[in-house]
Amino acid sequence: MTDYERVKGFREFYPEEMAARRTAIDTVEDAARRYGFREVGTPRVESARLYTDKSGEDILEELYSFEDKAGRRVALTPELTPTVARMVVARQQALTKPIKWVSTRPFWRYEQVQQGRFREFYQTNVDIFGSAEPTADAEVLAVAAEALTDLGVTGEDFEFRVSHRDVLGGLLGDFEGEVDTRAAIRAIDKREKITPEEYAALLREAGLSDRQVGQLDDLLATPADRLDELIAFADVEEAVENLEAVLAAAERRGVREYCTLSLTTARGLDYYTGVVFECFDSTGELNRSVFGGGRYDDLIESFGGQPTPAVGVAAGSSTIALLCQRAGVWPEERIATDYYVLQVGETAETAGRIARELRDRGHVVETDIAGRSFGAQLEYADSINAETVVIVGERDLADGQVTLKEMTSGEQVQVPVESFPGEHDRPTVEQFS
Amino acid sequence: MTDYERVKGFREFYPEEMAARRTAIDTVEDAARRYGFREVGTPRVESARLYTDKSGEDILEELYSFEDKAGRRVALTPELTPTVARMVVARQQALTKPIKWVSTRPFWRYEQVQQGRFREFYQTNVDIFGSAEPTADAEVLAVAAEALTDLGVTGEDFEFRVSHRDVLGGLLGDFEGEVDTRAAIRAIDKREKITPEEYAALLREAGLSDRQVGQLDDLLATPADRLDELIAFADVEEAVENLEAVLAAAERRGVREYCTLSLTTARGLDYYTGVVFECFDSTGELNRSVFGGGRYDDLIESFGGQPTPAVGVAAGSSTIALLCQRAGVWPEERIATDYYVLQVGETAETAGRIARELRDRGHVVETDIAGRSFGAQLEYADSINAETVVIVGERDLADGQVTLKEMTSGEQVQVPVESFPGEHDRPTVEQFS
Repeated sequence: MTDYERVKGFREFYPEEMAARRTAIDTVEDAARRYGFREVGTPRVESARLYTDKSGEDILEELYSFEDKAGRRVALTPELTPTVARMVVARQQALTKPIKWVSTRPFWRYEQVQQGRFREFYQTNVDIFGSAEPTADAEVLAVAAEALTDLGVTGEDFEFRVSHRDVLGGLLGDFEGEVDTRAAIRAIDKREKITPEEYAALLREAGLSDRQVGQLDDLLATPADRLDELIAFADVEEAVENLEAVLAAAERRGVREYCTLSLTTARGLDYYTGVVFECFDSTGELNRSVFGGGRYDDLIESFGGQPTPAVGVAAGSSTIALLCQRAGVWPEERIATDYYVLQVGETAETAGRIARELRDRGHVVETDIAGRSFGAQLEYADSINAETVVIVGERDLADGQVTLKEMTSGEQVQVPVESFPGEHDRPTVEQFS
Repeated sequence: MTDYERVKGFREFYPEEMAARRTAIDTVEDAARRYGFREVGTPRVESARLYTDKSGEDILEELYSFEDKAGRRVALTPELTPTVARMVVARQQALTKPIKWVSTRPFWRYEQVQQGRFREFYQTNVDIFGSAEPTADAEVLAVAAEALTDLGVTGEDFEFRVSHRDVLGGLLGDFEGEVDTRAAIRAIDKREKITPEEYAALLREAGLSDRQVGQLDDLLATPADRLDELIAFADVEEAVENLEAVLAAAERRGVREYCTLSLTTARGLDYYTGVVFECFDSTGELNRSVFGGGRYDDLIESFGGQPTPAVGVAAGSSTIALLCQRAGVWPEERIATDYYVLQVGETAETAGRIARELRDRGHVVETDIAGRSFGAQLEYADSINAETVVIVGERDLADGQVTLKEMTSGEQVQVPVESFPGEHDRPTVEQFS
């Protein structure tokens, strides 16, 4: 006889908590649905090669990877992008562009467990393939912003820090000397999580001189209305124009107010190519990114497909929950039950009919499945927050009656059994009083 | 440049197919929801011990099991029952009984890939903990039957073959000699998949004589109305009474008509203790079980919990899809779009407002995110089955008008832009004509 424990970094959700999470996930998915994103279903296991080809063998240290019985090197998917990219390539010709996909599911990474970060985590992924237009970037921003505002968080609560990879890349590329642009971008991405000294050290490792580190800091602080000035420093004209066009398109979609220009926003993943953004708690109370996204125009081609621009966002359920909780808008769901049909004595047939007819109308209806007394059934009905109890008792039934009881008010009324629920779509005590 | 392939036995679902699957899963979950089953969220990885303790080390051959970076022996969950049993034990005191849980998610088994059987497969699990009453067994049968009839399959299409483990066990236990009851039950479970000779050989391996094999066949053919006769042969009185009580309770729930007594229905898993059932295609065209369930009263205690009776069913999405397809009722979902807002010229602001207001009413609304011409946009609107196209053109707009076009009929009408969508919840061409 042993107790079993769940594996570290994995969670389970009991009904109340699950109901809150379901409401939140439905809200996020519904924002995408209204924009015409269509659900796809994706495998949870992929060839490890899907990740190592891009990121090297070291990436396996961060994944749940293993050999299957036939010796295939596989991994639990750590993110959706490579999988949907593979799916786009597989049906490149048949799919109508732009391809707009959404899905919510768990992913897995073997990493340190901390606040809002687990080894199994849920994300809603929203992606557009086949459009290089700034309106596509803006649409992804709009879906993400509406998902949050639909959840009840406001412009006071969050901000999207928006940047462009090629602005960073252009500035870094313009520095004299051998600068490892990718390494420098990764350093910038980490800036908020490390000390200024560690940050400077990483930049120097990437090939920047002390003077260049200071210069970079100045350039990255450029405000939105002076972006054009960067063009004088480096070959970033196209990137600046694109970034400005995305922000203008966001304005037309009513979500510019949630966007802050932030050239230090880099996103860690190597595959981003254009506009990138991260959502942050405006109050700074959550000291980590809520979620992020961006443009990855080269990925499909690198997977063997035709050149296909792409942009997307991955909204993590746990960090969204933390933001909602911080903002005081996390749904407080409780178990909800429309009717409890309470059966006493030899009335099972009538009680069964009533329960069936109420369920046929779409209601949540429970009945006794534990052989309980009147009092114990009423107590159970209360524990599941039943709104109305339909009491089907032997004596009542002999008089052709059942009793409706409203649990909150305690009010009750007798109703002729042959007309219950009858024509009533949602029969209440009030209707019969 | 390489093409990546999905891993053998894993599937992906593009939007049309996913929409059909989503409709089917929602239908099954909704049947459970109406009976008051509450959603739980469960981890996809468990300690391998959760399976090996019960089934021995050999079970690992059928699982995706591996060691994680810290040397933990873990497995991708092959079924939900051990996980929910663990969760019940973890909160045994706090949870209100009966506990009624539902969830839909993938599971994994490393087995031969064949029609309707994959290495990653989806199930909706419905379980009741804390009631030993026949009404609980009947409720699980009722949820399963309603899920199928809600999908459109009828009593002509499917049957639940219902049995009781202790009827089988009692009959086998009553045979003279050393009979390995579990081995014999596993043989009976396999009967339909193997030849009569193989079946008889397995029974002989389990310790039955040739004469006993024949006798067993006769006993297993006992019809429902003569179940009582079995009591004369063996100590099966309690089991027969329980089986009859479950069928009577199914009658009161209106689902007796879907149940056939079938004493050869054994269910392979060792943890079943009472009534067991399997759903089959009545036409026999699908020559395998659609799904199954039953009572497992000892599992919670064997996991270190207090004795807690339990009964449940696991409805597999792929085999349900096969049954629905065979019955001609599989949902033919296509991409559905309520509105396409077609924008030509410098009308982005108005088009954006209209799209936003239509989305605020909950509609699925797409707009151009690919910089397309009028004709290309109309073609795209057609490809996503847009019901209505709202044309926001420069010349129209100068006159204060937009054009509504119904795509099926081709009818169109001009509408004053300031009153669109205005008070209309679902504006159509007809409303403005």
